Amino acid sequence: MNALDVIRAKRDGNELTDEQIRFFLDGYTAGRIPDEQASALLMAIVFRGLNERELATWTATMIESGERLDLSALTRPTVDKHSTGGVGDKVSLLLCPLVAACGAAVPQLSGRGLGHTGGTLDKLEAIPGWRAHLSNDEALRILADVGAVICAASDTLAPADRKLYALRDVTGTVESIPLIASSIMSKKIAEGTSALVLDVKTGGGAFLPSLDDGRRLARTMVDIGERNGVRTHALITDMEWPLGAAVGNGIEVAESVEVLAGGGPADVVEVTLALAREMVELCGLTADPADVLASGKAMDVWRAMIRAQGGDPDAPLPQANEREVVHASASGTVQHIAARAVGDAAWRLGAGRARKEDPVSPSAGVRLLAKPGDTVCAGQPILEVLTDDAARIPDALAALRDAVVIEDAPFARRPLVHERIAP
Amino acid sequence: MNALDVIRAKRDGNELTDEQIRFFLDGYTAGRIPDEQASALLMAIVFRGLNERELATWTATMIESGERLDLSALTRPTVDKHSTGGVGDKVSLLLCPLVAACGAAVPQLSGRGLGHTGGTLDKLEAIPGWRAHLSNDEALRILADVGAVICAASDTLAPADRKLYALRDVTGTVESIPLIASSIMSKKIAEGTSALVLDVKTGGGAFLPSLDDGRRLARTMVDIGERNGVRTHALITDMEWPLGAAVGNGIEVAESVEVLAGGGPADVVEVTLALAREMVELCGLTADPADVLASGKAMDVWRAMIRAQGGDPDAPLPQANEREVVHASASGTVQHIAARAVGDAAWRLGAGRARKEDPVSPSAGVRLLAKPGDTVCAGQPILEVLTDDAARIPDALAALRDAVVIEDAPFARRPLVHERIAP
Repeated sequence: MNALDVIRAKRDGNELTDEQIRFFLDGYTAGRIPDEQASALLMAIVFRGLNERELATWTATMIESGERLDLSALTRPTVDKHSTGGVGDKVSLLLCPLVAACGAAVPQLSGRGLGHTGGTLDKLEAIPGWRAHLSNDEALRILADVGAVICAASDTLAPADRKLYALRDVTGTVESIPLIASSIMSKKIAEGTSALVLDVKTGGGAFLPSLDDGRRLARTMVDIGERNGVRTHALITDMEWPLGAAVGNGIEVAESVEVLAGGGPADVVEVTLALAREMVELCGLTADPADVLASGKAMDVWRAMIRAQGGDPDAPLPQANEREVVHASASGTVQHIAARAVGDAAWRLGAGRARKEDPVSPSAGVRLLAKPGDTVCAGQPILEVLTDDAARIPDALAALRDAVVIEDAPFARRPLVHERIAP
Repeated sequence: MNALDVIRAKRDGNELTDEQIRFFLDGYTAGRIPDEQASALLMAIVFRGLNERELATWTATMIESGERLDLSALTRPTVDKHSTGGVGDKVSLLLCPLVAACGAAVPQLSGRGLGHTGGTLDKLEAIPGWRAHLSNDEALRILADVGAVICAASDTLAPADRKLYALRDVTGTVESIPLIASSIMSKKIAEGTSALVLDVKTGGGAFLPSLDDGRRLARTMVDIGERNGVRTHALITDMEWPLGAAVGNGIEVAESVEVLAGGGPADVVEVTLALAREMVELCGLTADPADVLASGKAMDVWRAMIRAQGGDPDAPLPQANEREVVHASASGTVQHIAARAVGDAAWRLGAGRARKEDPVSPSAGVRLLAKPGDTVCAGQPILEVLTDDAARIPDALAALRDAVVIEDAPFARRPLVHERIAP
């Protein structure tokens, strides 16, 4: 068997055998197969896809390339969630303490943001003292004590995916549903959770804007989870407009704390509760997340979770030095605020990174002073941009130029949850 | 501009701009763009192709990556030929002295064999003393003195193609008509010839077996030649059966000398004369290659050409130590001898190489003791395998097991020249 034959087989539309997949992925992870052969195979997969059997073997091989955490010592049922990434999507910060307060253990091994969608770790790092990097033992201890942990996935989980993802990122081979699905699922399965809820975003600000693609991705991931003994459901949720009123790092933490305190934007609360109900149900628990949120117990878990990782939940969050307001260009009803444009603007203001090594600003971002459906008057402030570096403002304003559509016309509300996908 | 955007554009089926093509190819040749990004782009091109304008720019960029030889000092018209590679295809060895004897200058910058088809330089290196590597000055001097030179293309011609070809070879991206066409044509155009005849093989022993693919490749190359000021014609010739009776290195040289002496197999003579007529016509000369061959003048040029590169045209060629005969399994008419199987057998006997660095045997090969159309009796010798290493014989015989089809039925002769393609 050799790497070239595997590449040619996929290029020509043939099914790969289990042996071919294992030979190639193990060889690549071990450095026996070079990057240029792996990227050629990945591009062939972008065009030819992987069928169910190929994808099952591909994912299993990535999981087997590293450690699989054993959470069996925990007395509570385990459940995690994963979002495909949205603009203003701080829901992970909320679900982790909320579902823990409902009685589950939530091991959130998370990533950093790349491009126009933010990363959960980047957001939490805005909290003074908070540490993303824990040993597996530390994470397990916090999970047992607090019921919730959000930390960086260790290098020992699915190292094949780690190496492959870095390659896909520079070779234009990210955009493939089987490759996306196997990357997400191999990490989540290796993390040891026994149940998983997926938040697959759809709309202009989503990684895969079309509902059809989102549905295919959701079904593919649900199928992989079930084949690997992880009970998996997916909700397809809307990402045409930003979620909530804050898009950035520290300002999203502040908005999350508002929600935990019983307030916060209605759309954030609705999506959080919909996902929390799925997670609770998958665990076989009976608590109602709305009641638990109202009781303040989720806030207690949040504070304990932040403290357990060195953070001070009472410390003031970093504030931006520079701010500028965008005014409504007309009077009427806000019909649309483009999530993608707002995400790009926040990225340009310093909230996101272009390369994995880049730092992010804890205070930069965009605030929505009006939301779709609101009635505004011409000249009224509708957006506020925040940054530490005034030189970044013109580029951000350029990204926002056509982001907001105001018309004196009836408003068409979009559903927040489009579909639920279960095995 | 960045490499990732270029890869994505081609992956998504968009046309690349001239700037994108130049940025990528120049960057890759200079080492600014890594192998893994280049192989991803190449695989995207395998699926998406290159349109005429993209291909023209792609080829021009490869030519401009190096030197373009200036043959304008020659008093004779220049013309070269290129074959896509066949089994027993020694026609380059013949055309070079024959067309020079007709009055042209023939600068044959050649390659080595890889896989089941032999390379012209490998064949000539069976001649004691003959040197493939000449400086550009040496090659030009021989061309002026003798009218014919066959040598290795120098590293200064189309270095982008050299680097790209090595990458394609290990990444499953060889099989793309625009990439094949631009690779061949960039080297031939850089070599400085003002006219070019292409021998595109078709049939089971050809690199592209289907006539449709051969036709597309021929048209693509003729178009590139014309756009770059090189008068280019193509013949599509048959490669279902081996050409001539000798497949190997030294034994193909010996067969070529037979043809130059006025004998040799009829199919070799017919293909040689058809291509020679195209070359002579493209140069605007009036000599009849059949008359020139019969006159012995082509043999005189051959001897001078071999001597000019250090070879002794009278030295005995290396002989194989080990030989074994394959006998006819039945009586009847030989209907088919599979070129691909004979090429593979010669390769297994040592005549070809698996990797660019491997040496080849000057004496190994396969002799056809009968040709399609011949009547044979069961048990009569039909093939002979030659090697220096008896251990290679069983594998070669296995490759030949079903190569020869004998049936007591009418014989269907195949045309040797299928089509002629001119602008």
